[in-house]
Amino acid sequence: MKNRILIFVFFLLSSACLTLTAQNADSLTIKRIFSGALTDTTSYYNLRYLTGHYGGRLAGSAQSLKAVKWTEQVLRNMRLDTVFLQKCTVRHWERGGKETGKVISAKAGNHNLSICSLGGSVPTAGNGLTAKLVEVKDYDELKKLGKEKVSGKIVFINHPADPSLYNTFAAYGGVAGYRVRGAVQAAYYGAVAMIDRSATTSHDNFPHTGILHYADTVTKIPALSVSTNDAEKLSHWLKTDPDLTVFLKASCNELPETASYNVIGEIRGTEHPEEIIAFGGHLDCWDICQGANDDGAGVVQTIDVLRLFKSLQLKPKHTIRVIVYMDEEMEQRGAKAYADAAKDRKHIAAIEADRGSFTPWGFSIDAADEQVKKVQSWKNLLLPYGLFYFEKGGSGVDIRDLKPQGVPLFGLVPDSQRYFDYHHSVNDSFDKINIRELQLGTAAMAALVYLIDKYGL
Amino acid sequence: MKNRILIFVFFLLSSACLTLTAQNADSLTIKRIFSGALTDTTSYYNLRYLTGHYGGRLAGSAQSLKAVKWTEQVLRNMRLDTVFLQKCTVRHWERGGKETGKVISAKAGNHNLSICSLGGSVPTAGNGLTAKLVEVKDYDELKKLGKEKVSGKIVFINHPADPSLYNTFAAYGGVAGYRVRGAVQAAYYGAVAMIDRSATTSHDNFPHTGILHYADTVTKIPALSVSTNDAEKLSHWLKTDPDLTVFLKASCNELPETASYNVIGEIRGTEHPEEIIAFGGHLDCWDICQGANDDGAGVVQTIDVLRLFKSLQLKPKHTIRVIVYMDEEMEQRGAKAYADAAKDRKHIAAIEADRGSFTPWGFSIDAADEQVKKVQSWKNLLLPYGLFYFEKGGSGVDIRDLKPQGVPLFGLVPDSQRYFDYHHSVNDSFDKINIRELQLGTAAMAALVYLIDKYGL
Repeated sequence: MKNRILIFVFFLLSSACLTLTAQNADSLTIKRIFSGALTDTTSYYNLRYLTGHYGGRLAGSAQSLKAVKWTEQVLRNMRLDTVFLQKCTVRHWERGGKETGKVISAKAGNHNLSICSLGGSVPTAGNGLTAKLVEVKDYDELKKLGKEKVSGKIVFINHPADPSLYNTFAAYGGVAGYRVRGAVQAAYYGAVAMIDRSATTSHDNFPHTGILHYADTVTKIPALSVSTNDAEKLSHWLKTDPDLTVFLKASCNELPETASYNVIGEIRGTEHPEEIIAFGGHLDCWDICQGANDDGAGVVQTIDVLRLFKSLQLKPKHTIRVIVYMDEEMEQRGAKAYADAAKDRKHIAAIEADRGSFTPWGFSIDAADEQVKKVQSWKNLLLPYGLFYFEKGGSGVDIRDLKPQGVPLFGLVPDSQRYFDYHHSVNDSFDKINIRELQLGTAAMAALVYLIDKYGL
Repeated sequence: MKNRILIFVFFLLSSACLTLTAQNADSLTIKRIFSGALTDTTSYYNLRYLTGHYGGRLAGSAQSLKAVKWTEQVLRNMRLDTVFLQKCTVRHWERGGKETGKVISAKAGNHNLSICSLGGSVPTAGNGLTAKLVEVKDYDELKKLGKEKVSGKIVFINHPADPSLYNTFAAYGGVAGYRVRGAVQAAYYGAVAMIDRSATTSHDNFPHTGILHYADTVTKIPALSVSTNDAEKLSHWLKTDPDLTVFLKASCNELPETASYNVIGEIRGTEHPEEIIAFGGHLDCWDICQGANDDGAGVVQTIDVLRLFKSLQLKPKHTIRVIVYMDEEMEQRGAKAYADAAKDRKHIAAIEADRGSFTPWGFSIDAADEQVKKVQSWKNLLLPYGLFYFEKGGSGVDIRDLKPQGVPLFGLVPDSQRYFDYHHSVNDSFDKINIRELQLGTAAMAALVYLIDKYGL
């Protein structure tokens, strides 16, 4: 009996030692990953090139196709095992030049508005429209006004994003719906156009654009976003002169759908090449900005995960693959094309990086409870690099279509405080990027990929 | 017996319920604290005023005294229970105008260097000095060269901060010693001046200054900092022409010591007014910058903790006190004056905010293990606000003199990735401040003060 106990104790100790040794090896590899990321400037200069040369690369645009070509060349230069384009068909909406917005009032004065069309908006007819303005805070107020008071007017939805919320994505989520569906709601009551307050807690002079949805049941009316500062002023002028009129001119244009591409590159797995760990960001961005944080950062970081694996000579057992998605901003056609094609290949996990270039905190995990727990068991390896967040939650719209296939999904979660200051506005430019924060995002994803590849989910 | 068990179970359940209710009340109060901080712009505009009007407020300077006066007025306007100045005597070192640094070489060309005197440096004699340059990476290399090869020359210590380290304070700590003691080491081998590579991982064109220490045993030689970009170039030019000379001119001036002040304000405790929970940042900053992150942010945030308590009508049991310290950068004379005076009053805790305005992560705690554990037991209340870091470690130089009095010390720990990009250089300016990140630092400290006040340590 005593011997049996001794053997058992010995067994326990051996397992503990083996676990410790494995943890130690992992800890050293993860240290190499972070050091490797922090001492290489490739992703930063890739982002500088992408944003500097191919800004405004909205799906369907000439810029987006140039960006596809450039991305493909970047991946080819890395001498990966596979590089290919994956075709998708995308909308081709154009802004057609800068919009005009003017307040016209004898009492409140004449003022230019800092304004831009929402993505997918119809143009104003002819040489623009002039109409009275009616301000509402939400759909309840709109409903109360009813057709009588709204018909023939421009509806101005002035609902500020709630700054009291810690989570800026929650603050954004609380108002983005007005941008997406406000035009339909306003048109239902007979409005001739809709102006939405920009979806940001920031007080700035830049309109923040973004996609809008129309419905077949009501007239498609022009929909524009006004900067938060001008939203405050507009509200003030309207109190000074309830009869003021606004002139709007927008020359948007919806062209025929056209071909575009996801760009894909991979390092083949040594043991299970048929099984894939996927990660990616989206190449397209709004036409009015460089798309540095949304989502040039995610693109160069996920590409850099492959570079890191190569330069550190980490040989993954499973195939690791970057997908540079097309058309996240409008219709996620690239994501759909990828998910369709993915049915043929087992995906162990998919990671999306689309929340900016800021210091990474961890991952939001859309997977089974046991899988979440498994990832949480790696926390001590990652905490020394500020990665403390590994919680159940949504991942991202470019990978969500993999969920029905049972793929565990991960969204990289960086610090979110500054993201919506830049989001979908001209402020989303390269000068907002901090090289170390960018590099750390790469390292966080590479560390997760390394652990998933080694231990599975 | 059965009854006793029932009573015991009832007792357990009641305690659990009471604990839960207390936690719920705390959770609601902490939510109010964060909402209150995120919806008030006072600290941001205080910082804009302070940095815009009283930049370069090094201890001893006219600017620093104006800043003291302004700070006192800010506290008086808040209608606190007590506001007072606490005298200290400070050094009065002046830069005396912009420094000149020039490379002179027939082979490598003539070039201006982006250079500035280190804090406390002696000037160059007469109209400047011209000497040959010798580059070393560290003191071992300096020792190997010895007096023969160093004497009469300018020593250039070119030791880059290690970018591979995740913790930028560790990277800074690895090189700051060359700035502090490099002049003494170089002078020991007969050098006529010392040029130090700026202590930052950032590649920029701005010299980063900071304090240096002389020793009585060796000649005081002029000591300057060169921007990291120019350090790279200088090294390159020196390889091109090992005989190149450098011209240096610095007009620093050490004036007689002079009077200055800590600024102190407090809300009196309702139950234990004689016991103090203290928090503060330092008002002085280097003369070449606005001192927005180092440490205007800490000043306005800790002042804002008092504003928050007042506006939320939180009545602390103990006196809560802000100390706006003078002279952190040179000799910590304000800190010493405070610690001396503090002997008469029991301090429950002291918090220092001096690591920049970035998103707060938590606190570094210099206290007994049980006190650290107690703070860690509050983690679940704070984690919803991204506060995950509550670890044993150093606090800050303005409160460390309270340690011998047994005071538990806390250092606010924000995200550190960008701090040393700005630190002690002209880049430490107001435009680098994000309002939400600044506000969150206030909230983090207010929440900690609230919990310490309620539950003790």
